[in-house]
Amino acid sequence: MRDVERIFRATATLYNKGQPHFSSSNLLVDNCLRLLGDSANYRHFGSFLGRPAVEYNVFEKQGEVSRPVRPDLFIENRQKLVSEQSRMIERLREGPTDWDDATVRQATRVIYTNVMSFACCIDLWKRSSRKTPGTFFEIYFAGLVPYLFTNAVLSKHISLPGISEDEEDKMEEAEGTEDGGSSVATDLVIARPDCENRIVIPLKITTRERIVQPFAHQRILDSAFGKGRYSSFLTCVSETQLDNKKKSVKQVCVPGTVKLFQRHLGQINGLYYCDVPQRYAAADMTSYLPVKEIGEIFRDFWQYFKN
Amino acid sequence: MRDVERIFRATATLYNKGQPHFSSSNLLVDNCLRLLGDSANYRHFGSFLGRPAVEYNVFEKQGEVSRPVRPDLFIENRQKLVSEQSRMIERLREGPTDWDDATVRQATRVIYTNVMSFACCIDLWKRSSRKTPGTFFEIYFAGLVPYLFTNAVLSKHISLPGISEDEEDKMEEAEGTEDGGSSVATDLVIARPDCENRIVIPLKITTRERIVQPFAHQRILDSAFGKGRYSSFLTCVSETQLDNKKKSVKQVCVPGTVKLFQRHLGQINGLYYCDVPQRYAAADMTSYLPVKEIGEIFRDFWQYFKN
Repeated sequence: MRDVERIFRATATLYNKGQPHFSSSNLLVDNCLRLLGDSANYRHFGSFLGRPAVEYNVFEKQGEVSRPVRPDLFIENRQKLVSEQSRMIERLREGPTDWDDATVRQATRVIYTNVMSFACCIDLWKRSSRKTPGTFFEIYFAGLVPYLFTNAVLSKHISLPGISEDEEDKMEEAEGTEDGGSSVATDLVIARPDCENRIVIPLKITTRERIVQPFAHQRILDSAFGKGRYSSFLTCVSETQLDNKKKSVKQVCVPGTVKLFQRHLGQINGLYYCDVPQRYAAADMTSYLPVKEIGEIFRDFWQYFKN
Repeated sequence: MRDVERIFRATATLYNKGQPHFSSSNLLVDNCLRLLGDSANYRHFGSFLGRPAVEYNVFEKQGEVSRPVRPDLFIENRQKLVSEQSRMIERLREGPTDWDDATVRQATRVIYTNVMSFACCIDLWKRSSRKTPGTFFEIYFAGLVPYLFTNAVLSKHISLPGISEDEEDKMEEAEGTEDGGSSVATDLVIARPDCENRIVIPLKITTRERIVQPFAHQRILDSAFGKGRYSSFLTCVSETQLDNKKKSVKQVCVPGTVKLFQRHLGQINGLYYCDVPQRYAAADMTSYLPVKEIGEIFRDFWQYFKN
């Protein structure tokens, strides 16, 4: 695990400096898969009792149990992940315009495996680092974008016009507090030199009580820049939760809240998941906003910048 | 402490059933003050280094230290609290139209003492019950409203028109999750039979990262009902935090974020505090939205329903 932690820190450092970090993140995931393969037991845990039922595995080590993992999406074999990811990258480079279902699913599996292999290592060996899986999701995903758009400019903060910060900056420095007052802090923003409009990507392992944020940000951006300048693609891994008593898996969804936010707070462009919660894929939800698997997001980004 | 816990549960039960609970909550606070007086040490802790500096005390018991308490606002003496609260209630009944600064301050002290005495007991004897001080703030404050408006109708949920929940309710029941989908869940709503407009009161011990919520709710209510039907009065105790290393107190403020939300997310009617953070009382903030001490809120409620 010490190797995994070391490579994670190195990858994060590269990312924060704006330097190429994709091969470092691949090395990290390779180490995670090796560690899980060597030192953890990968076994069936239980089902999500949906229609249809979905089976979940867990990694286990000396009684510690990881988050639930979908075996049909997780690529255990390190060589297989390398080759599947290479093919995905190749297809991102070509432009994802004609991706069929199998290609979309392959991309979903690759992304899911990258994010979950690191997250499960954290679950088993460093449960106190609760936030690092989310950070790595952001880092890994940002690493894919340059293959899709070679001229993309990536950032995290969107400065807003017209709110003076002079006075408050001084105060906060003095008090040692942080305030993102005159900017909106998102996880990833994609800009292209040839286009005024921009993509905002909130990246969350799961949304839980933080789901208000992307909708509130969208509303703020609409209000500050006018509708259409910024478009949010909320991108998540899953909404699963282990139920240890029942030996089953729950998908924790708030469909009514999402509809409410989409209708009355801010309109986001879509909801993307590696492991799409069944409740969100239902017709009453998709009539409010697109809900798709993550492999489809590249085609939608591509389309967005074409329009 | 067992008495305190028992009376708290009894008070909460009365409140949740919509039954009169104010005398039960007074009994609770009386027990809290006695417990603190008998079993804890009340001493100076350190200063908030503002302009002017503000002094803070703490309650202490066998090395456990409570949250910071402002000795100029906290009424230690049980008899004094009873008589000051009686006077406040009397003045609420008369209508708070002509309250002078001293009357406002008295109300602030009474509310602060009620909420903080219970919160400090939790800090010293049951730190795991992190959420109960917030719940009691809500319960106590709701108990004051009937003295101000005898015909007030209190609630917590605002049903929104037009979002069907049939299907999702079934799903959620099956999965055991909660979703406030077609309603906005606030802390307290005041309606009066003679008035179409309503007051929404988010009650928070401190706001921290949850400050987006009241502004997002205001926007949703504006969107669903039109502007003006619901007005939010964000009501808090303080934004203080102990700095154990420096033996000082911080006031954690995000003025830029508040301005941003007020400007681009939703317009709330004001920000009310028992212990007003100096940063929020500054002119650059109050030019965006009123920031006042909590004793002024009754006059503002009164005014609101008069208009």
